[in-house]
Amino acid sequence: MKKYMTLILVGIIVVLSATLIGVLTFMKNQPPQERAFEPLVEIKAMEPDSKKWGENFPNQWTSLQKTATNNIDTTYAGSSQFSWLERDPRQVILFAGYPFSKDYNDDRGHMNALEDVRKTKRLNLDPDDPKHTPGTCYSCKSSNNPALWDEIGMAEFDKMSFMEIGARIEEPIGCANCHEAKTMRLIVTNPALGEALKAQGKDWTSFTRQEMRTVVCANCHVEYYFKGDGKYLTFPWAKGTEVSQIIEYYEEAGFKDWEYPDAKTPMLKAQHPEYEFFTAGSTHYNAGVSCADCHMPYVRDGAAKYSSHDFHSPLINPEQSCGQCHTDSEYVVGRVNEIQEQVATTKQNTEDAIVDAINAIKAAAADPNADVAQLDQARSLHRKAQFMWDFISAENSTGFHNPEYALKILAESTNLARQAQMLAAQSVDDMSLLETGTYYETAEQSQ
Amino acid sequence: MKKYMTLILVGIIVVLSATLIGVLTFMKNQPPQERAFEPLVEIKAMEPDSKKWGENFPNQWTSLQKTATNNIDTTYAGSSQFSWLERDPRQVILFAGYPFSKDYNDDRGHMNALEDVRKTKRLNLDPDDPKHTPGTCYSCKSSNNPALWDEIGMAEFDKMSFMEIGARIEEPIGCANCHEAKTMRLIVTNPALGEALKAQGKDWTSFTRQEMRTVVCANCHVEYYFKGDGKYLTFPWAKGTEVSQIIEYYEEAGFKDWEYPDAKTPMLKAQHPEYEFFTAGSTHYNAGVSCADCHMPYVRDGAAKYSSHDFHSPLINPEQSCGQCHTDSEYVVGRVNEIQEQVATTKQNTEDAIVDAINAIKAAAADPNADVAQLDQARSLHRKAQFMWDFISAENSTGFHNPEYALKILAESTNLARQAQMLAAQSVDDMSLLETGTYYETAEQSQ
Repeated sequence: MKKYMTLILVGIIVVLSATLIGVLTFMKNQPPQERAFEPLVEIKAMEPDSKKWGENFPNQWTSLQKTATNNIDTTYAGSSQFSWLERDPRQVILFAGYPFSKDYNDDRGHMNALEDVRKTKRLNLDPDDPKHTPGTCYSCKSSNNPALWDEIGMAEFDKMSFMEIGARIEEPIGCANCHEAKTMRLIVTNPALGEALKAQGKDWTSFTRQEMRTVVCANCHVEYYFKGDGKYLTFPWAKGTEVSQIIEYYEEAGFKDWEYPDAKTPMLKAQHPEYEFFTAGSTHYNAGVSCADCHMPYVRDGAAKYSSHDFHSPLINPEQSCGQCHTDSEYVVGRVNEIQEQVATTKQNTEDAIVDAINAIKAAAADPNADVAQLDQARSLHRKAQFMWDFISAENSTGFHNPEYALKILAESTNLARQAQMLAAQSVDDMSLLETGTYYETAEQSQ
Repeated sequence: MKKYMTLILVGIIVVLSATLIGVLTFMKNQPPQERAFEPLVEIKAMEPDSKKWGENFPNQWTSLQKTATNNIDTTYAGSSQFSWLERDPRQVILFAGYPFSKDYNDDRGHMNALEDVRKTKRLNLDPDDPKHTPGTCYSCKSSNNPALWDEIGMAEFDKMSFMEIGARIEEPIGCANCHEAKTMRLIVTNPALGEALKAQGKDWTSFTRQEMRTVVCANCHVEYYFKGDGKYLTFPWAKGTEVSQIIEYYEEAGFKDWEYPDAKTPMLKAQHPEYEFFTAGSTHYNAGVSCADCHMPYVRDGAAKYSSHDFHSPLINPEQSCGQCHTDSEYVVGRVNEIQEQVATTKQNTEDAIVDAINAIKAAAADPNADVAQLDQARSLHRKAQFMWDFISAENSTGFHNPEYALKILAESTNLARQAQMLAAQSVDDMSLLETGTYYETAEQSQ
């Protein structure tokens, strides 16, 4: 009888221990934002100073600081400030008449955002010039923004000049751009993103944490424009986020970023549509991979495991980034290189076609007898072709975030550019406008 | 002391057992071709009758027989005999003047190869017509070939008419096309493949079995042409197997499959370059995947595990095919569909551009005052553009075997086609030849 009692007792202990282990394991596996944490210091809501957040999260803060100096280049891009205009002089022609033709450097790491935006030659700081740079240009450059947007509203922020609002901005991109101070959960802080999602009937507060690990990047890494006189920051997503839907939106809005000199094409400049491009059915996105999975891989410091905040190309540390899923990072890097080579080559051919179209349209536009309907149609195709090209060119992955989509868009862009050239020639009945490779001729002459 | 003796004895037994298990495991893991097998019946070298081989390998034979009736279609292709000319009437225009414009059905399974080649309306059986179908057309249709090539030589085989050599052919594609009877190892049986590899300095007998699981498919699934008056089967690989290298080869050889009516373009017809396309740096090929891994997945019948010989699209049985590596076949099939949709759409735009070029060149060629140099340049671009398009179109995966390569080629083809159209217009100084969408106008008129 005593033997049975002992057995029953042992049984009870085993069951209780198992339950305890189960509960502890369950608690351990909860996503971080639901795990209670004991802050060393209290962080006030929308605190702009990342250093303060860093007292509670030293690993994240230390890694974020590395973005100040992580200026390493990859084959096709990277984090140094090389000049796109020097590397690919076609872009001087493609952006003629727009500030990007004067100064177009590759982006450095997040911690340099403020310094770099203040240094670019694209700025126009003359408050009397109606084309002066608006405050909106600070939208993606500072962790002061969330508190400022909260205090004065985004409409007010955007109406101010770059100099005016700039006086209240002193921090580069930081913790407050993606995190809620009290809970550390990932949040949409840019009002333009909240509005764009809402216009699509989406409520980001219902998203999973894994979804938010992509969506918070869309606080900045998107296509946007400055709407109306108030330069109101707007994502052109009302019809969807595919390139064709964005073009449709701009067509209806009748928006242009600038008019191409002499050609008089109403142009669009693509920004950095990483979010739209990656989420348009890419294999990684469809497989449930988030931006953070590759650009903020989990790393270890002693016993602590944390998500690196040293944002940069995964090609710099493929073992850590790609290695979270892929066992053979040498193979993976080879694949990325192969894809980027294919996209880069095709992109260059597209640029040549657009330059040919531009030169033809310019010549046709100089002829007062040009057929207006045909010339306008040529301009319309030039506008579309160049935005499609720029959607791939300005996107920061040389096509890798969505390779097939990149090449499909470039194929279509090339086709439209050639048709634009043909229409321009037709509009003035001038066969000489059908010349191809005009970029190379110009380049040769200028040598 | 006795205790130690026992321990030593036990130790010896453990070591011996481990060695035995190791040796057995090693033997079990040897590739099949090196594993001794006891044939029930002896198969003579190059035996054409697959039924006889089937007595030793009933599972493989039973699955091969299924290719006689596996006429299932996928979204973009499959194994039924649907007409490409009906599905995509642009191809009637693209192949005008060539037998493919009269009869171009999708391919059925291997066991139907002989029946189908004898039924096609592309045949010209008039022995007095210098353009009669040569015996070479049987090269990929029958397991009688290896023995015939061995007996009379490929040069003799190819010189005979389709009717002559046909009298000695009675079996469809079968075991002898890929296997050596005595060892069952995978071998190159088509002399043209052996010669093409040798020209590249490659010795297939040194290839691994996994390499051979791709290379044997190249006995047939390749780009080829009939060289010279002897219609000698030749793979145009001397400069390499990329599409640009194949074009370079044909340019140097001055070869054409036919002359496009009225346009007078010296045309090239692409065959089914699955091998060249897949091995040009595709992600699956680079990862070491062979054709057989996806098209002949390992299946089980009771305790027997064998490589299915029921060749068809993996989209028919993704769990068996893709599931060998990918855990989520629903996701994988979604990816394939997305890629194929992108390639199919882009391919259609390319076709439209080529049709525009053809119509312009035809009109220009009718003008005796056309600038010959410009018109010839237009023809040269038409020739290249159409071969590049056909390289993707005739390839049996709607781009999936190498998606980025497919889209890169289509982008370039479209660009060349538009340039061909422009040159044709320039050659006769006729702006009306710059019209686009001429296929749709023709299609509308004919309704």
